[in-house]
Amino acid sequence: MSLIITVGREFGSGGRELGRRLADELGIAYYDREILLEIEKQTPYCLEYIEQVTEKKPVPLLPIHYGMSFSTAGDPHLDQSIDIYAAQTKILKELAEKSSCVIIGRCADEVLKEIKPTRVFVYADMQSKIARCKGRDDSPNKPDDKALAKKIKKIDKNRSKYYEFYTGKKWGDKVNYDFMVNTSNHSIKDIAHALAETLRPELNK
Amino acid sequence: MSLIITVGREFGSGGRELGRRLADELGIAYYDREILLEIEKQTPYCLEYIEQVTEKKPVPLLPIHYGMSFSTAGDPHLDQSIDIYAAQTKILKELAEKSSCVIIGRCADEVLKEIKPTRVFVYADMQSKIARCKGRDDSPNKPDDKALAKKIKKIDKNRSKYYEFYTGKKWGDKVNYDFMVNTSNHSIKDIAHALAETLRPELNK
Repeated sequence: MSLIITVGREFGSGGRELGRRLADELGIAYYDREILLEIEKQTPYCLEYIEQVTEKKPVPLLPIHYGMSFSTAGDPHLDQSIDIYAAQTKILKELAEKSSCVIIGRCADEVLKEIKPTRVFVYADMQSKIARCKGRDDSPNKPDDKALAKKIKKIDKNRSKYYEFYTGKKWGDKVNYDFMVNTSNHSIKDIAHALAETLRPELNK
Repeated sequence: MSLIITVGREFGSGGRELGRRLADELGIAYYDREILLEIEKQTPYCLEYIEQVTEKKPVPLLPIHYGMSFSTAGDPHLDQSIDIYAAQTKILKELAEKSSCVIIGRCADEVLKEIKPTRVFVYADMQSKIARCKGRDDSPNKPDDKALAKKIKKIDKNRSKYYEFYTGKKWGDKVNYDFMVNTSNHSIKDIAHALAETLRPELNK
């Protein structure tokens, strides 16, 4: 049986690193930006635009669910966002069908809910997130802590709105996940190893 | 260095079993009802009364913190609840000082925050909690699912209010924990093993 692991994550919490390590430990596929590249192939939109709309709630309408009957009142931006979400949904389902894998973000927990993925959410306190962002920024003019905190909050607000728009559920709410891990006080390597050990028996079922 | 693990848990989620397994795997002490027995020794109150007040918010006042200056306006029930919380606080600190351990409930994450315990929260969906409660009830007249759900909700509401009353924080909110585990879809044995493996290096530091 395939083991599908979805990883939701706060910006700067190390969710990608955790997902990557988890995939490596379990010897399964890892999908993150690969999904965006695939959307680019399958739609007329460029990568930059796809990146921009896949982490933001498209327009301030009431929550809708893709596939329901509704009118976008001819809003081209909304139409395009939904086109891209539809392509993403199709790609996620194809990937999950193909083999065991770890998928980062992209509402994959909701898109794949029928095959019951293992849903992980990664978070951390603001201080740790700022430290992690600083550590991976090699530019000479690094933003200060206040500016970084503002950026982190903004990105997470967008992720949260995007998730809620397409799923109707609350991003980061424990009821929507199987494991919630705070990376502030424990090493991502150790956490990834522990999760891999917990999930390995399911891989071999 | 001591490893102190606190386990908050929804009723019926298997938090006790997880805590017990974690302590067994790590070969460290486990404290649950032992704390109530110790409170009984150190205060004039009987075990039944202690059990009753240590999972319920005492009175509908504004949140207070034990140790702050305030008046209980001569309410004997509130005075006794606070007496018991004070004894519990003292005992928890003594136990944590003594050796590495797992402590179930009792706002231990907050009481011991200065020594930075590893804070675990265990939860599950209602269906799983009902199934677990049924499994451990040997009585001939088991309550039906609806009655069980009502009981579970009531107990958790009390735990939540008790926690919020004494800590000023939200019970079960991810920001207050390091690991949040949903026992609905994964074996408690596997989760406990994985957590033990993650935390073992800290025990040997």
